[in-house]
Amino acid sequence: MSAVLDTVPVGAASAATVSRTFAAEAAPTIAVVLLGTGVVGGALLKLFNTPAAASLRLVGAANSRRQQTDPTNLASRSLREQLNHQGDARDNAGLLAALDASGAAIRVIVDATASAPLASRHAEWLARGYHVVTANKALAGGELPGWRALQAALASGGRYGDSATVGAGLPVLSTLRRLRTCGDSLLTLEGVFSGSLSWLFNQYDGSRPFSVLLREARQLGYTEPDPRSDLSGEDVARKLLIIARNAGFSLGTDEVDVQGLVPEPLRALDAESFLARLEELDAPLAKLHAEAKSRGCVLRFLARLNQRGRARVGLVEVPLTHPAARLYGTDNQFALTTTRYNTQPLVIQGPGAGPEVTAQALLGDVLALG
Amino acid sequence: MSAVLDTVPVGAASAATVSRTFAAEAAPTIAVVLLGTGVVGGALLKLFNTPAAASLRLVGAANSRRQQTDPTNLASRSLREQLNHQGDARDNAGLLAALDASGAAIRVIVDATASAPLASRHAEWLARGYHVVTANKALAGGELPGWRALQAALASGGRYGDSATVGAGLPVLSTLRRLRTCGDSLLTLEGVFSGSLSWLFNQYDGSRPFSVLLREARQLGYTEPDPRSDLSGEDVARKLLIIARNAGFSLGTDEVDVQGLVPEPLRALDAESFLARLEELDAPLAKLHAEAKSRGCVLRFLARLNQRGRARVGLVEVPLTHPAARLYGTDNQFALTTTRYNTQPLVIQGPGAGPEVTAQALLGDVLALG
Repeated sequence: MSAVLDTVPVGAASAATVSRTFAAEAAPTIAVVLLGTGVVGGALLKLFNTPAAASLRLVGAANSRRQQTDPTNLASRSLREQLNHQGDARDNAGLLAALDASGAAIRVIVDATASAPLASRHAEWLARGYHVVTANKALAGGELPGWRALQAALASGGRYGDSATVGAGLPVLSTLRRLRTCGDSLLTLEGVFSGSLSWLFNQYDGSRPFSVLLREARQLGYTEPDPRSDLSGEDVARKLLIIARNAGFSLGTDEVDVQGLVPEPLRALDAESFLARLEELDAPLAKLHAEAKSRGCVLRFLARLNQRGRARVGLVEVPLTHPAARLYGTDNQFALTTTRYNTQPLVIQGPGAGPEVTAQALLGDVLALG
Repeated sequence: MSAVLDTVPVGAASAATVSRTFAAEAAPTIAVVLLGTGVVGGALLKLFNTPAAASLRLVGAANSRRQQTDPTNLASRSLREQLNHQGDARDNAGLLAALDASGAAIRVIVDATASAPLASRHAEWLARGYHVVTANKALAGGELPGWRALQAALASGGRYGDSATVGAGLPVLSTLRRLRTCGDSLLTLEGVFSGSLSWLFNQYDGSRPFSVLLREARQLGYTEPDPRSDLSGEDVARKLLIIARNAGFSLGTDEVDVQGLVPEPLRALDAESFLARLEELDAPLAKLHAEAKSRGCVLRFLARLNQRGRARVGLVEVPLTHPAARLYGTDNQFALTTTRYNTQPLVIQGPGAGPEVTAQALLGDVLALG
């Protein structure tokens, strides 16, 4: 059959075409500064060298210690490595100056870090006329005053690209906002918002101790180096706050009931000591698993927002007919019940983590500004 | 706890506020002509009387025989009924004139019909500077030349709101287009695109004859009055064509292999005779169901697009672990595997039919033009 795929192949030639745009003289459509060159920032730099990013010009990039605003260095394929040993000292003013000097009508700061201090600058940057695109959840998922400052700054016309903060770009926030624009309202939200916790409980059937699975997940890179960042449920709570706030529930961090998986005695330990004592997680979880199984249920680490705006994050048992009982791998799942989607929820499910899809979410938000 | 829901309630007062906008003197932001006042068009007229539609002004409305452009009549809550016995004779020129006379910067024609003749005008309207928002699949899901004419017309700047044509507004096409913008490509697509066929096979477990379920589905309004429109698979094929074409596969209608459920001897009958012979569907389906069951599988009416652009629509057996094996009610399901979502698909699932969500999809596309 003769289906014709009319997408542009991403080949060396195309990449060359794009690289030239870095050195182009004309003012670019969209000028970008990238904060953070870790796994997500690194994946985004790769996407910047594809035809999809032809309308963008990278005018600055920074890791936590150094930054670079020289066009030739920015165009280098080894920019990420270079920043480890060369470049100017970190100085946000220098990066903003590079955006201003670009002459671009659209000036964007992309935050691919997890830095709370950087997130605390987002509102100020928006108020100064820069757009902000972020994978950093610390502002929108942080303390309520920060969220309110963000809303106030957005009134000044800047746009805040937050697709990467929830589900690594799965179309959750965009769908929620579109429904609200149409006058629909979120009634309840339920789902699995953590790729690592999804994988752990999709795998956990009692046949192997939880600690064995946890070590495996860590080796596979599904968890943070210190898995407590995942097990604490705090990251899930931040995502729940971001969704709830975008749905109109102005929740404070203290209004999310978070039941983490790290026993109190293990919370204060250094990472190495914690990793040496993972087995202490096994018995309590084995007991919960057995109890759930006796009731024909499985354990899932769920985030829930009910109709009264009550937000809860923690391990619950769900029947096998529950949507979350049927997840695979590291899939995230978001089930939205609204005034108009009230018989069955609107469900969005899929990979909710990973450098490439997260970087794509950032790129999509940047391109949406054009 | 003190969650604050900051959505605007849709109350009588707000509705009154909105009704006034119909009679307002100032030029509206967005002027709308509505074609079709059936169940979807009727639901959209209700949404036009909510605060979400405050930026819109309805300047014309038509059913298949009559139309109305008088502001007072258009503002009437009984407009839909009125059109059955009063109004001008149908004349597209008169409706376009009302759009032009509105002085609105954004002029939109909303097609809430299933009329192929009307769909064949979409490209012309776009070329003339009107935006088109449609639930009508006849153009984008029709013959390839029509699709190509549509693409050519879109080059002239008009926008085509098609969210309602697939999944009644589930965020499938928007997600696919966003991924493509980022340089991602659809590799495979699989899903259940028909609410009625979803319900029929979610229910069908061999305990009751298929014809009994089909009569029940028809009484519940899940199928068309003549269920062959659903059973033929043609509607599913149109949706598959729309998605495939938006993904870059320029498929012709003859390139979709459609295996419908209506036996050849029943295709030419009038509706009444067909309904009298539904039992003839039972034996063959019972056999397929038993065979599937013997292999631990269930039957699902799937649409599939594979990596070579091969498109198929029909009844297949899937294992219980297959996502489509776990659908409820009339839910639709769309599983997209792309270059970047290649380990697990991105899945969007939920109500894919119904007047209110379909009307909301139309409203969302209209508001997105503002």
